[in-house]
Amino acid sequence: MDIEQLQQRLRHFAAQRQWQPYQTPKNLAMAMVVEAAELLEIFQWKTAEESAALDEDTRQHLGEEVADVLLYLVQIADQCGVDVDAAVERKLLLNARKYPVAEGAGSA
Amino acid sequence: MDIEQLQQRLRHFAAQRQWQPYQTPKNLAMAMVVEAAELLEIFQWKTAEESAALDEDTRQHLGEEVADVLLYLVQIADQCGVDVDAAVERKLLLNARKYPVAEGAGSA
Amino acid sequence: MDIEQLQQRLRHFAAQRQWQPYQTPKNLAMAMVVEAAELLEIFQWKTAEESAALDEDTRQHLGEEVADVLLYLVQIADQCGVDVDAAVERKLLLNARKYPVAEGAGSA
Amino acid sequence: MDIEQLQQRLRHFAAQRQWQPYQTPKNLAMAMVVEAAELLEIFQWKTAEESAALDEDTRQHLGEEVADVLLYLVQIADQCGVDVDAAVERKLLLNARKYPVAEGAGSA
Repeated sequence: MDIEQLQQRLRHFAAQRQWQPYQTPKNLAMAMVVEAAELLEIFQWKTAEESAALDEDTRQHLGEEVADVLLYLVQIADQCGVDVDAAVERKLLLNARKYPVAEGAGSA
Repeated sequence: MDIEQLQQRLRHFAAQRQWQPYQTPKNLAMAMVVEAAELLEIFQWKTAEESAALDEDTRQHLGEEVADVLLYLVQIADQCGVDVDAAVERKLLLNARKYPVAEGAGSA
Repeated sequence: MDIEQLQQRLRHFAAQRQWQPYQTPKNLAMAMVVEAAELLEIFQWKTAEESAALDEDTRQHLGEEVADVLLYLVQIADQCGVDVDAAVERKLLLNARKYPVAEGAGSA
Repeated sequence: MDIEQLQQRLRHFAAQRQWQPYQTPKNLAMAMVVEAAELLEIFQWKTAEESAALDEDTRQHLGEEVADVLLYLVQIADQCGVDVDAAVERKLLLNARKYPVAEGAGSA
């Protein structure tokens, strides 16, 4: 996935529809949370087991929600000057420091 | 960003820490929403204008929340067999159909 | 509003429909967040001014979302042994301490 | 719980601190979702069983989040002219119609 290219396409898409006045980072963050909650709704009444064994229709639906969240996320990053790839690498490093592997713990 | 490689790294990271029993899609979806809300919190009391002009510390903080949401998102997709790149392309197509450009509307 | 009586009615309602196995605090918290996001969605693309001047249909819709959030909230409290009235009073006290009134600041 | 009296107290509290410009329904809805997600976070990595058996500290913490959500909720209702008691009664009626009790199903 080429995040910068995706951001460019989304910028173009919004510009063509004259959506820029609505697409402030604040509003995009609200939209992103709304989509995140729609993703959550899929798992709402499912057991842990059921949540790990979705049927094809539900998987399709989940794919749409995953895309919705991601599309708003990269637009927020674009407007606010956040480099997504760098932010992800930085977070992985922080997480590795924050959660060291227990001595003797085996990896998969 | 190579999503599949990222998913592999996250799978390895979780396995090393024996986190798999906790990381059901249901729990990951909850964690993703919690991070999405932490991102939202950044913009909570800001005006639209302020939300478009973050200082460097806030941008850094935003970058961490963007990464947190994205990392949970790709883990959900991984566990549920959702192809993120394909889901994004499909959604862009659906959006283009759903929101046609008004005739005469100018692009940027 | 008699919270305890409301909780009793909701307990009865769930029991009649044999919903208890699904209505764990964890699942109710997910459902509550989903409804909270549906409430948020109402204001998503509105300006601050528009958000303060809803038309009658939107107000009606908002009322439903307010009720949905509240009904899940009191069920979570019920199942977890949280006294809502006491929690609210305690929180008001904590807030008053946390945010003292600035000297010379006028009240309305 | 006297909702109207609570709303009056919160109005007074906000006025004393000159918070009214920030407390638009839009911003309050964002704040409410942020608190709802903090409540969700309590249950994030817990099993259904663990979520039903909180220790005293966690119950206390949950009480604070319940209060936070409720306080924002009644402020949103106040500013938007939603009668919370009426909205709840209306919703209970709608739910009873939407989910009829299966014939032969026993109540508690």
